[in-house]
Amino acid sequence: MFAVIMAGGKGTRFWPRSREAMPKHLLDILGERTIIRETVERIRPLVPAERTLVVTGRSHAAELIRQLPEIPPENILIEPVGRNTAPCIGLAALHIRKCVGDAVMLVLPSDHRIGDEAAFRTVLQTAARAAAGNALVTIGIRPTGPETGYGYIEQGDRCTPPGDTAVYRVRSIREKPPREEAERFLKQGGFLWNSGMFVWKASAILEAIGRLLPDLNGGLMRIREVLGTDQEQAVVDAIYPELPSVSVDYGVMEKARDVLTVPGDFGWSDLGSWDALWEISPKDEQGNAVRGEFVGIDATRSLVHSPGKLVALVGVEDLLVVQTADALLVCRRGHSQDVKKVVEEIEKRELKGYL
Amino acid sequence: MFAVIMAGGKGTRFWPRSREAMPKHLLDILGERTIIRETVERIRPLVPAERTLVVTGRSHAAELIRQLPEIPPENILIEPVGRNTAPCIGLAALHIRKCVGDAVMLVLPSDHRIGDEAAFRTVLQTAARAAAGNALVTIGIRPTGPETGYGYIEQGDRCTPPGDTAVYRVRSIREKPPREEAERFLKQGGFLWNSGMFVWKASAILEAIGRLLPDLNGGLMRIREVLGTDQEQAVVDAIYPELPSVSVDYGVMEKARDVLTVPGDFGWSDLGSWDALWEISPKDEQGNAVRGEFVGIDATRSLVHSPGKLVALVGVEDLLVVQTADALLVCRRGHSQDVKKVVEEIEKRELKGYL
Repeated sequence: MFAVIMAGGKGTRFWPRSREAMPKHLLDILGERTIIRETVERIRPLVPAERTLVVTGRSHAAELIRQLPEIPPENILIEPVGRNTAPCIGLAALHIRKCVGDAVMLVLPSDHRIGDEAAFRTVLQTAARAAAGNALVTIGIRPTGPETGYGYIEQGDRCTPPGDTAVYRVRSIREKPPREEAERFLKQGGFLWNSGMFVWKASAILEAIGRLLPDLNGGLMRIREVLGTDQEQAVVDAIYPELPSVSVDYGVMEKARDVLTVPGDFGWSDLGSWDALWEISPKDEQGNAVRGEFVGIDATRSLVHSPGKLVALVGVEDLLVVQTADALLVCRRGHSQDVKKVVEEIEKRELKGYL
Repeated sequence: MFAVIMAGGKGTRFWPRSREAMPKHLLDILGERTIIRETVERIRPLVPAERTLVVTGRSHAAELIRQLPEIPPENILIEPVGRNTAPCIGLAALHIRKCVGDAVMLVLPSDHRIGDEAAFRTVLQTAARAAAGNALVTIGIRPTGPETGYGYIEQGDRCTPPGDTAVYRVRSIREKPPREEAERFLKQGGFLWNSGMFVWKASAILEAIGRLLPDLNGGLMRIREVLGTDQEQAVVDAIYPELPSVSVDYGVMEKARDVLTVPGDFGWSDLGSWDALWEISPKDEQGNAVRGEFVGIDATRSLVHSPGKLVALVGVEDLLVVQTADALLVCRRGHSQDVKKVVEEIEKRELKGYL
């Protein structure tokens, strides 16, 4: 079994901690270890370092190698430009085919949070068994609210006998629905959030790309010819900008036959924003989630993220307060999606040091 | 004419900018110059540097000399401990008596803000003329609201003819009244805020202290004997801790006869808190008063004080955000009196570097 860690994210919503040079997955937002370090370590019982591939952008490769010294450098695959998940997964699948002929691959975002790691690994093992045929398996998350930022997986028939971990056929996948539709999904039941984590054989996903994404497939076939030669990176660099930018969800999963899902319940968060971090963080009696030295006077339900600096909150509630050496964010809880507007404004005003 | 600048304040309410080692008057909170520098410069047309005395604590003397290089070092009077305003003023009056026999002295806090400096000087000149007899003159401020943090001066008869700047007899001085009383004063009219700025002859205030504060007077007389000798500071250091801690308002002004007031209207603020700074600061269209690089997304009516660092506010209103190299304060507007509780908490938890 292989693992493919997708580490192409920019994470502008975690400004000011996340920066162009240091996206979310390279940060220690959750604790002492960086997020990608946690991602790699939690699958270590299933996949050794030599079978872990990481796909990332050129500017983050050096830091990534520094953080993951046990991963062989040749397992770090460089995308010259981001082209969404389908090309990234296709490139990794080619490497696996070249390396071992064929294998099941766990495709995992680098920057999610998993609360219960043992439960997570059980789900991955179930998914791997389900993918041993030629099915494409997606990990579904039981929804806790009518979120509109996720895709929804409609469960079909159950494939496993009672007692075994549940695996379902997928009836349909609905990309980010409007609020009313999400509410209907929740009320109706039988829908899961699409976590963006997938399990399949390298041969199965390449076959599906060949059938459903011919442009991408053409590019991948040209890369395949030079794989392992000294021309490899040059050809990837030349071809990648021409590839269609398409997600594996939209480009493959929504259209493929033989798609299965394993519902998971392992304290998942995609850590999409500072709000999400407050949600999953341990809190004190006043509902404050604090990292750093803190004095609160009549201060409640806030996030304070300020490693190494004192923060005092007085008479405030529902704030996200994030501090770095050169910048400070103070954001109302529930508004952290707008942090990307701050980054846009910094770009517009050319305050370049802060990007 | 002499000026006596009282620079003994601690200014904990301006934490985290004000610290034990750097109280409010030594900070550049208002603009490019420090507050005491502005205080000294605005009276320069009336009083030369050699006739300006500054009374301060030992730990702030060096910084004060650095900020006010034109003031002769012997004009910096050191109080070994703070004993409120009456001893401070008495000590300065002794120096003036010793130096020139007698003179009118302008007694000014080091840390107030004056918007209209020309109008302020006109008021001081009027007060100086009124003090040329033996009156004790206090500068009154026309109240703009029923503040409970100030003393109130009840005006009596007018002493100056129409056309001249108004000077009134003082009927009574009421220390910090309860809210209802302050409201009544405002409704009734004829009340002024006590600004804590005074004008009198050195001989007149020493005479009043002699009459009304015999304990203080005894200590001052012992200091007078050694003034100008090499024992002076040693005797001050020995006697000061024994002096009664009493304000000139309570100890003298409320009880003295022949007290006059000159009402002033010159954009005064005692800069008592970060709230006060927001009130007097120029604001942008969203009502934000900003110092430092700033990005606001749906952010209104806030103070941002962050020299040299970027602050982004998202979806918030009515906040006071103050940042230094090592600490951050985020306070709801209207709650900045509670900043002193932060300082108390820092003391209690012995986070000493932050005091």
